[in-house]
Amino acid sequence: MKTYEIRHEVGIKASLEAVYEALTDTKKLAGWWTSDTRGNGSEVGGILEFWFGDSCHKFEVAELQAGKFVRWKASKEDSVWEWVGTEVAFSLRANEEQCYINFSHSGWRQDNGVFPHSSTKWAVFMLSLKDFLEKGKGQPAPNDVEINHD
Amino acid sequence: MKTYEIRHEVGIKASLEAVYEALTDTKKLAGWWTSDTRGNGSEVGGILEFWFGDSCHKFEVAELQAGKFVRWKASKEDSVWEWVGTEVAFSLRANEEQCYINFSHSGWRQDNGVFPHSSTKWAVFMLSLKDFLEKGKGQPAPNDVEINHD
Repeated sequence: MKTYEIRHEVGIKASLEAVYEALTDTKKLAGWWTSDTRGNGSEVGGILEFWFGDSCHKFEVAELQAGKFVRWKASKEDSVWEWVGTEVAFSLRANEEQCYINFSHSGWRQDNGVFPHSSTKWAVFMLSLKDFLEKGKGQPAPNDVEINHD
Repeated sequence: MKTYEIRHEVGIKASLEAVYEALTDTKKLAGWWTSDTRGNGSEVGGILEFWFGDSCHKFEVAELQAGKFVRWKASKEDSVWEWVGTEVAFSLRANEEQCYINFSHSGWRQDNGVFPHSSTKWAVFMLSLKDFLEKGKGQPAPNDVEINHD
């Protein structure tokens, strides 16, 4: 079955350790994606819940490599059915200047509907993560940058 | 051959006509992507050049449907070799609230290298286009939002 993938990349002036922490520590996750983040992102098998009002993106932590790689698997209970079966991954690398986050959200069964919306929104949140790490303050939901008027 | 695609969607409070104009009028294109935009975007077969310092994204206008659809084909002379052979398309639809732009950049031969960077950057420019139309001022290059420190 053909699947579709969202990809992004940002470069952040922060250490690999700091970026990894912002992707695995529940309180820090709440600093850039959604303020209402619950669960445990620092152990494989941990459950992470990202709440947006009454809607929840729910993941199991599938893979962790400290300072290098984070992968989450969307739960069957995700509020957005298009996300069920998808995976989110963050791959980290650094040079002297910065740390790069190579982001993917893969396993989409269709590239219409919520897919292009999610792609743009992930870019917004990658920039929120960048601000969180570089400026000490991100723009997590519900104070995130709006991309439409829905 | 497998190819890869960047997708985005934004919702803008503007008429289909105004959005279409911002995608076809050279002066308006300069208001949201890059200030140094040259050529003719309002006729099929027209050549559009988007300059970023010494680097140029060069396209031929491949398809136009007023108020509905715009498609550009990257030139063999594009400064970024990964862009050669790719196509950029904007599909418009409106409801009572807003006009949606469904964006695609298709025909990529690889999903690494400049691909994820371009994906994030297109989101930045879609939001610049949104600001251009809603607030009267976008953030075209060289005053665009930086996504890394290169």
